Amino acid sequence: MSTAPQRPAAPGPLAIGFDDIRAAAGRLAGVAHRTPVLQSRTLDALTGAQVFLKCENLQRMGAFKFRGAYNALARFSAEQRRAGVIAFSSGNHAQAVALSARLLGMPAVIVMPQDSPAAKLAATRGYLQPVPGQTGQPVGEVVLYDRYTEDREAIGRRIAAERGMTLIPPYDHPDVMAGQGTAALELIEQTAAFGPLDLLLVCVGGGGLIAGCAVAARHLNPAVRVIGVEPEAGNDVQQSLAQGRIVHIDTPRTIADGAQTQHCGTLTFPVIQQAVAGIVTVSDAQLVQAMRFAAERLKQVIEPTGGLGLAALLSGVVPARGQRVGVLVSGGNVDIARYAALLADSPPLSA
Amino acid sequence: MSTAPQRPAAPGPLAIGFDDIRAAAGRLAGVAHRTPVLQSRTLDALTGAQVFLKCENLQRMGAFKFRGAYNALARFSAEQRRAGVIAFSSGNHAQAVALSARLLGMPAVIVMPQDSPAAKLAATRGYLQPVPGQTGQPVGEVVLYDRYTEDREAIGRRIAAERGMTLIPPYDHPDVMAGQGTAALELIEQTAAFGPLDLLLVCVGGGGLIAGCAVAARHLNPAVRVIGVEPEAGNDVQQSLAQGRIVHIDTPRTIADGAQTQHCGTLTFPVIQQAVAGIVTVSDAQLVQAMRFAAERLKQVIEPTGGLGLAALLSGVVPARGQRVGVLVSGGNVDIARYAALLADSPPLSA
Repeated sequence: MSTAPQRPAAPGPLAIGFDDIRAAAGRLAGVAHRTPVLQSRTLDALTGAQVFLKCENLQRMGAFKFRGAYNALARFSAEQRRAGVIAFSSGNHAQAVALSARLLGMPAVIVMPQDSPAAKLAATRGYLQPVPGQTGQPVGEVVLYDRYTEDREAIGRRIAAERGMTLIPPYDHPDVMAGQGTAALELIEQTAAFGPLDLLLVCVGGGGLIAGCAVAARHLNPAVRVIGVEPEAGNDVQQSLAQGRIVHIDTPRTIADGAQTQHCGTLTFPVIQQAVAGIVTVSDAQLVQAMRFAAERLKQVIEPTGGLGLAALLSGVVPARGQRVGVLVSGGNVDIARYAALLADSPPLSA
Repeated sequence: MSTAPQRPAAPGPLAIGFDDIRAAAGRLAGVAHRTPVLQSRTLDALTGAQVFLKCENLQRMGAFKFRGAYNALARFSAEQRRAGVIAFSSGNHAQAVALSARLLGMPAVIVMPQDSPAAKLAATRGYLQPVPGQTGQPVGEVVLYDRYTEDREAIGRRIAAERGMTLIPPYDHPDVMAGQGTAALELIEQTAAFGPLDLLLVCVGGGGLIAGCAVAARHLNPAVRVIGVEPEAGNDVQQSLAQGRIVHIDTPRTIADGAQTQHCGTLTFPVIQQAVAGIVTVSDAQLVQAMRFAAERLKQVIEPTGGLGLAALLSGVVPARGQRVGVLVSGGNVDIARYAALLADSPPLSA
């Protein structure tokens, strides 16, 4: 699980070990928020558990993705920094790379579909503006493509080759995985006074967050059960674990846009196989209930994907009575009109 | 501002002094949440200030009101505890008294309009249930009245007389005011590392919160300017300060239901006169913009009244450039359907 002692700089059998996460935490100190951990007596009473919510919706740019992106970019060589970074994403990874590049003063290109929501385009472009007070610094750009006629990977490869830029993928990268793991590292430090966690619930898209978090959590507390939560419509990792190979699925139809991945990564999957106790799924209706619960009782705005772990707990899909449970709330970036519509359609909480 | 030294047990010229707030903080320790203080780079960039949001939307029962109610009930004599407490309120004070009574194991009667929203009735009744694991404890009740044909004060006086109960008003009571002041005490402690606050923005209904907070803040930092924020439609305290007497107005039409007071209190007003630098007003449209900003950028659900201070800052009604600014976010209890409707109708943020 960690790098072999005789080859400290080379990867071990798994892409990351705990030392990588510890090192990432050092890079993120003073840059990423040490996000608060919320508790709720109502939630504890409903579940019979002692629940600790790690609020990555309060992370910079509104999601845990900042951790992995910044950690990866902070490890660039001087030459890589000069040429800059390229990423393609219409989601939180885009904003995470944009903000990290700005903070580190390197050029960035974010390849986004031209029909991306205006708010996401504006937010990503906003993160690419020069930092106030800094001058003469390279500024990034958003490159748009037509998702029906153009191949974003080809566009990305062309720009990367032309400009010598380094591509940072959203999850299948050791530095990204290690960065995401710092969320669990912090959660365990922040809850240490209550005793070790019995259970850790983590949302699963491409597997970067759960891979990093599982390595961190199980290193610090080998007895913890790490459970991944996928949307019902997109249970590719559940299938992959059952079949012992990475299963590819069609883009799932779910409101959890951060988990609309077709498959996990070649680096994340072995870690998940080794460190994760199992994967459960929840429906979109259960996600909306979790979002409503978060708004009504926790006063937190969470995005659909951010509600996966909470939904698994509230719905009873993962029984937790008598246990100390950590829940990774992954993010809070949701279009406000869409958020309002989801809340308006949600049935009242029964308890 | 504090009790006269020669008469330590008697009230001084003002209803409360800093010692009362310090004592309240002792009673609330381990019972009330020490709510987090949030910062936002976006908010700082928009305002040119360094802003600290004291998140009382994350307080127990979802609002600062718990502080004052619990402090008042905790000071009851043994005889008062046996007979219990009565309050009339359809808002956060009802839930605050209900929860405090339950925690302190005393009977409670909450007088509420029979057409109160079902969610508020359910929440108040929920707080009156026995604490799990405790048995044989007195349980409170909600008494409904018809707001068109009955006088709630007469009902309250009758029940209080029949049962020997103590009435706790929502703001015009020294123990309530002192309890609310602990919010500012905490905020100042939590932000001490950044240097003293230049400005503190506090929402104003009956004046209990701003009175307590002004006494706490100005004792710890005499140079701080404490500014109250009222809804445009209900600026009775602004008028009262201008006229030097308590002005009564008709129940204002505003979405800020926590500030729909017709006048401030005979105890809160002299404190406000002495310790508050001024009162400003914001429109309902500015409140909705503040609620949207809180959801979109801060990922916090705040109720309309909770957005008064933030609205004054975001709208530029209170210029804050170059200053360290504390903002009391008073609560997050808003009917979810109404919240969704307000967000859905809100214009997009310009920045």
